[in-house]
Amino acid sequence: MNDTHRGNDRGPTALRPLRVIPDFVGSAQGSVLFEIGSTRVLCTASITNGVPRRLRGTGTGWLTAEYSLLPGSTAERSAREAVQGRQGGRTVEIQRLIGRSLRAVTDLSQLGERTVYVDCDVVEADGGTRCAAISGGYLALHLALKRAVDQKVIGQLPLTDSLAAVSVGVVAGMPMLDLDYAADSTADVDMNVVMTGSGRLVEVQATAEKVAFDRSTFEQLLDLAEQGVREITAAQRSVINATYGQGSPRVRGST
Amino acid sequence: MNDTHRGNDRGPTALRPLRVIPDFVGSAQGSVLFEIGSTRVLCTASITNGVPRRLRGTGTGWLTAEYSLLPGSTAERSAREAVQGRQGGRTVEIQRLIGRSLRAVTDLSQLGERTVYVDCDVVEADGGTRCAAISGGYLALHLALKRAVDQKVIGQLPLTDSLAAVSVGVVAGMPMLDLDYAADSTADVDMNVVMTGSGRLVEVQATAEKVAFDRSTFEQLLDLAEQGVREITAAQRSVINATYGQGSPRVRGST
Amino acid sequence: MNDTHRGNDRGPTALRPLRVIPDFVGSAQGSVLFEIGSTRVLCTASITNGVPRRLRGTGTGWLTAEYSLLPGSTAERSAREAVQGRQGGRTVEIQRLIGRSLRAVTDLSQLGERTVYVDCDVVEADGGTRCAAISGGYLALHLALKRAVDQKVIGQLPLTDSLAAVSVGVVAGMPMLDLDYAADSTADVDMNVVMTGSGRLVEVQATAEKVAFDRSTFEQLLDLAEQGVREITAAQRSVINATYGQGSPRVRGST
Amino acid sequence: MNDTHRGNDRGPTALRPLRVIPDFVGSAQGSVLFEIGSTRVLCTASITNGVPRRLRGTGTGWLTAEYSLLPGSTAERSAREAVQGRQGGRTVEIQRLIGRSLRAVTDLSQLGERTVYVDCDVVEADGGTRCAAISGGYLALHLALKRAVDQKVIGQLPLTDSLAAVSVGVVAGMPMLDLDYAADSTADVDMNVVMTGSGRLVEVQATAEKVAFDRSTFEQLLDLAEQGVREITAAQRSVINATYGQGSPRVRGST
Amino acid sequence: MNDTHRGNDRGPTALRPLRVIPDFVGSAQGSVLFEIGSTRVLCTASITNGVPRRLRGTGTGWLTAEYSLLPGSTAERSAREAVQGRQGGRTVEIQRLIGRSLRAVTDLSQLGERTVYVDCDVVEADGGTRCAAISGGYLALHLALKRAVDQKVIGQLPLTDSLAAVSVGVVAGMPMLDLDYAADSTADVDMNVVMTGSGRLVEVQATAEKVAFDRSTFEQLLDLAEQGVREITAAQRSVINATYGQGSPRVRGST
Amino acid sequence: MNDTHRGNDRGPTALRPLRVIPDFVGSAQGSVLFEIGSTRVLCTASITNGVPRRLRGTGTGWLTAEYSLLPGSTAERSAREAVQGRQGGRTVEIQRLIGRSLRAVTDLSQLGERTVYVDCDVVEADGGTRCAAISGGYLALHLALKRAVDQKVIGQLPLTDSLAAVSVGVVAGMPMLDLDYAADSTADVDMNVVMTGSGRLVEVQATAEKVAFDRSTFEQLLDLAEQGVREITAAQRSVINATYGQGSPRVRGST
Repeated sequence: MNDTHRGNDRGPTALRPLRVIPDFVGSAQGSVLFEIGSTRVLCTASITNGVPRRLRGTGTGWLTAEYSLLPGSTAERSAREAVQGRQGGRTVEIQRLIGRSLRAVTDLSQLGERTVYVDCDVVEADGGTRCAAISGGYLALHLALKRAVDQKVIGQLPLTDSLAAVSVGVVAGMPMLDLDYAADSTADVDMNVVMTGSGRLVEVQATAEKVAFDRSTFEQLLDLAEQGVREITAAQRSVINATYGQGSPRVRGST
Repeated sequence: MNDTHRGNDRGPTALRPLRVIPDFVGSAQGSVLFEIGSTRVLCTASITNGVPRRLRGTGTGWLTAEYSLLPGSTAERSAREAVQGRQGGRTVEIQRLIGRSLRAVTDLSQLGERTVYVDCDVVEADGGTRCAAISGGYLALHLALKRAVDQKVIGQLPLTDSLAAVSVGVVAGMPMLDLDYAADSTADVDMNVVMTGSGRLVEVQATAEKVAFDRSTFEQLLDLAEQGVREITAAQRSVINATYGQGSPRVRGST
Repeated sequence: MNDTHRGNDRGPTALRPLRVIPDFVGSAQGSVLFEIGSTRVLCTASITNGVPRRLRGTGTGWLTAEYSLLPGSTAERSAREAVQGRQGGRTVEIQRLIGRSLRAVTDLSQLGERTVYVDCDVVEADGGTRCAAISGGYLALHLALKRAVDQKVIGQLPLTDSLAAVSVGVVAGMPMLDLDYAADSTADVDMNVVMTGSGRLVEVQATAEKVAFDRSTFEQLLDLAEQGVREITAAQRSVINATYGQGSPRVRGST
Repeated sequence: MNDTHRGNDRGPTALRPLRVIPDFVGSAQGSVLFEIGSTRVLCTASITNGVPRRLRGTGTGWLTAEYSLLPGSTAERSAREAVQGRQGGRTVEIQRLIGRSLRAVTDLSQLGERTVYVDCDVVEADGGTRCAAISGGYLALHLALKRAVDQKVIGQLPLTDSLAAVSVGVVAGMPMLDLDYAADSTADVDMNVVMTGSGRLVEVQATAEKVAFDRSTFEQLLDLAEQGVREITAAQRSVINATYGQGSPRVRGST
Repeated sequence: MNDTHRGNDRGPTALRPLRVIPDFVGSAQGSVLFEIGSTRVLCTASITNGVPRRLRGTGTGWLTAEYSLLPGSTAERSAREAVQGRQGGRTVEIQRLIGRSLRAVTDLSQLGERTVYVDCDVVEADGGTRCAAISGGYLALHLALKRAVDQKVIGQLPLTDSLAAVSVGVVAGMPMLDLDYAADSTADVDMNVVMTGSGRLVEVQATAEKVAFDRSTFEQLLDLAEQGVREITAAQRSVINATYGQGSPRVRGST
Repeated sequence: MNDTHRGNDRGPTALRPLRVIPDFVGSAQGSVLFEIGSTRVLCTASITNGVPRRLRGTGTGWLTAEYSLLPGSTAERSAREAVQGRQGGRTVEIQRLIGRSLRAVTDLSQLGERTVYVDCDVVEADGGTRCAAISGGYLALHLALKRAVDQKVIGQLPLTDSLAAVSVGVVAGMPMLDLDYAADSTADVDMNVVMTGSGRLVEVQATAEKVAFDRSTFEQLLDLAEQGVREITAAQRSVINATYGQGSPRVRGST
């Protein structure tokens, strides 16, 4: 299970190795263990009855995401937020991004008054956890919704497109795809891009970590991100095909 | 004081009227009431001794921002977060953005072990409050730091550039600058851009509110935002010149 | 805007200069910026549907007040209570006093099942903020209720009297009206008196800060407070007359 | 133990029967069960090392009070605040009053850097609990400090006077001393007076529950309160004499 | 009231002296002050309308227990959990044990949709407080339910058996009954046993405090506990008989 | 990965299939994924510098455990405690049991002033999660401590014995080993037993879920538990031998 290569000698425009284990949690409606390099995120999707107060009576559904770093997922143990009595600012910011992104490809009106929770718990954190949570969360969501369709709980798959995300950045002056923790820590610019399978943008978040950046750097990074997302999209597609299509639906790794 | 024009008949690429009242709070080290259209944000900057634990002993300083909607600032009263016992997710996300942006133009190593708090309390919310908080927060920060330099608390102004922000979006299919609340509520894409006075990017956050967007739309919006930020930068400069430069330093409106 | 006189050479029985800006917040149903000396409080009143559980079905309404010191309002920055996760004891005590006082002049049975929130956020704190919040809160309440009457939301103004408050104290052995922060810090006795426009008492709170006081001192202070409240009542009346009565209803300063 | 008379036929200017059990908690440094009518409050005083941060290094001490209604103390069970995760506004207001009052007769500079906690937990609530907590809290404080003097932890009793409190009010148009719950619920005016044994005022808090009151009513109530406090002071004195003075120091009832 | 003997010279298999004051709180539906040695717990039972959400509409009731150490109950003052904003782990663990145990002898289906709260507040803590809370809580529960039967609120006493608890442990290598604080602090094994009046087990919780224990030690402790519970059961029975049966129903001590 | 048999046709005295994946989290000092039937718990152990305040300066260490149900681990999604702002009572009770049990086999004095956190996050919950957390937590602890010894951070393995736990119960009148969720839900008696590898008892917790039980039932259950723990102990030993001893140290399943 630990066959990924930390500090592997990929070039600056290559993704880290991808591995996806669908249906990792037998009891969950939809789940995957999504691994990219040494970053591993457990994503589960649960469809529950009821919606937030402001949507009651509208007949439309809702989707929300929650995120955590498991305490042992980081080199130095991360304090458990349930013990501290509240989620930190970084957690809140990330889970809002995940939820907003997934809602952009979900037709909530077809859900009925149901809420889908997409839970993303990081088992091992080596950079890019929010992007892995989005790419994996989309798969868990797909599996849960497909099951609900099969069980005739909802009429048809309420997804308008697929969704994936990747990080890019400038490290030592060079644009780089899919930063691991070591690269991320020294990056001048950090950018997360969420795109649909059809190549349209859903979220672009670029941050000058150390120094402000110019427009041409920004464009280069966006080009690189688009390429990375296309590769992840292809991997997602083969997972979904394998899970539903053929003989061995439950375990699937792809690189 | 209510001379701004809600729903004024500006074109899609015009900013709303700007008005800045520096030193609005006599007791604060730096403060402005920053108004853009009907959006009005009270920004104060306070320099305090001490830094977060992880910086102790490093000799470097820190800057953090806090944001709130005052309960009466919205058409429907906003619940007071102190009564609810925690800040909401939107608040947390916004104040992290403000803090990160301001740190990008502040040389923390020149602060000594001090923490600057930039507090942004929205008096009236009509769209674009986070951008107004950044543009106004920069001014409050400048005033507080200038005062500390004058009092020889710190050696020189630890600012590497000026900073301003603006929102842009796609409304009814058309790119539009500086969205008010009515426009924002119907926008397909919502984007906030933070730039330095020298025209470099600090934060770009684009979100598909309803439908994913393509790259060319994104580029158009970025062009529009750059133009808007340049105008706000010019207004900031005239406020600062007026405040420090001449006879009537304390009150200054600019449109 | 900072034309008030800290440490102005008024006598011990004179109020600090008063200034009131009605409708300071365009979006609020009722609002004033209430200034007395360098103490400045932003008061807004919002009428919302619904009442606390214990009143449901009774047909009667409720009024509650909330108070905060904005972080930049004090010489040393005050920590933001929303970040700390709870309101401090002083805040709770003050907002209960404000709410109780305003309810004493409001006929809740005429409100229907509505709750009025009176929010008092201190922009600048130089002593007497709870009294300024009561005097200003009454004005914001009046403006909001008047608007609701004009819009035929409620039948008639449900106010039985006007309301104002002032602090008095013993400083260096001498009774003194309307203590600023410097005087308050050294006072032996501190007393807040809330009275109606017709001169009846609503709240009397006297506290021995350092040494217990005798009955005759107490009576002297109460005499002084009654005089102070009468002056504030007169100023309130002129604000209300100016706002509703004549041509320029929205901006009014009085000294 | 339940020999008090609810609704006993005392006149409007008579106190309810008083009963004090000193040293009710064997393990506490100072404790009493203070009973007035059916209102019964368990008061304990604990002297601990250390002071709040702002006093460190000053050599002076601190005194603080905490108050609760035990869940079974009221006819309808009161929710436990520890379960709800915070103290209610009424609790906070009351415990601040108790602490402030007791500090007025305590010479904190003689305590050294110690904090005295006076805990007041209401066993049975039938009106006037905050006053009973002050009168009983003073006794618990005296017992704890006396013990500390006897053990040579502190040099001499750091009390400058004794302290007691009583409630008065206007019920059905008539001034009345020491309101029980039934009377308090229908009172027009409610007033709590804290006085020293030598007859000086420490706190006066008068509240118009239903209608504002005039000055002459206020004076009548204050006269009545002064008489009531004198009686409680006498009872306190006999408890203290009995506890320290003679053979049977530990159990003492007085009416 | 302090006639119990700390460190009394009872043998290792003797209980500490028992004393029970029924109806200690006049306003509560059921209450006792339960004392065993110097451990004293105030137990009240309150029957309220309504049940937790998951039971609504089922026609069955619920019983829950809450526990606290009053701040003055321990030699070193215990911090008040309401001030800290949450109950500690030990408190939570204990109150869950009390509730679970009492539910085992209560026929909830006969309660209707009512919730019984059993509140156990420790006045003085000298070891064995959770067992005293169970034994005393049972009595308070019995008194409250009996009153509800007498008032025809419920049809018949919904209790299937009586309930009592005792602690046992190994101290200095020797099995010992009913540990006080001093013994408990040095015990190698600590065990709490809850039994019905008919001698059946409800809860057994044994913990190796320092070293793991063998099966034969465990059996010895269980024998000893069974004997102790039988004695407490007998005392409970005589309290109940005295309270309901004869002339002086309200005060009853038993040793 | 989902080869376990829910509702498999084992007899009442057989354990569910066991499977252990050591070093499941590459970045953690010690970790296992511990699976028993469909119950799967991710356990990580982290050694950190520092100890709780009460141990500072003593030179001894501390061990504490934290537990959570991941939201997707249960058939109906479990609410995330970090979002709710506090850990529930069941969580607190369980994590205290895990910590207490592990401390019973750890020589804290050999740790130095370090704290070991054992985090147990339930991936899939099908009964017996607290016991799986103890058995798996012990393995994670062993791996982390062994690594610390290898890195000469601590001198020798500070473990005095191995530790494992199992649940037993009475279902439909019959004693049964290792209850899954379906069995647990209908059990009359529920019991958790924690034992050392040498067969000594560490914790025994028996609870009458529906009806009180007699001593002979209790003894039968304890016999059954002892047998179950011996089997788990054997499996733990083979995992440890395989991990450290031979060629394939990192992946090991055993049934």
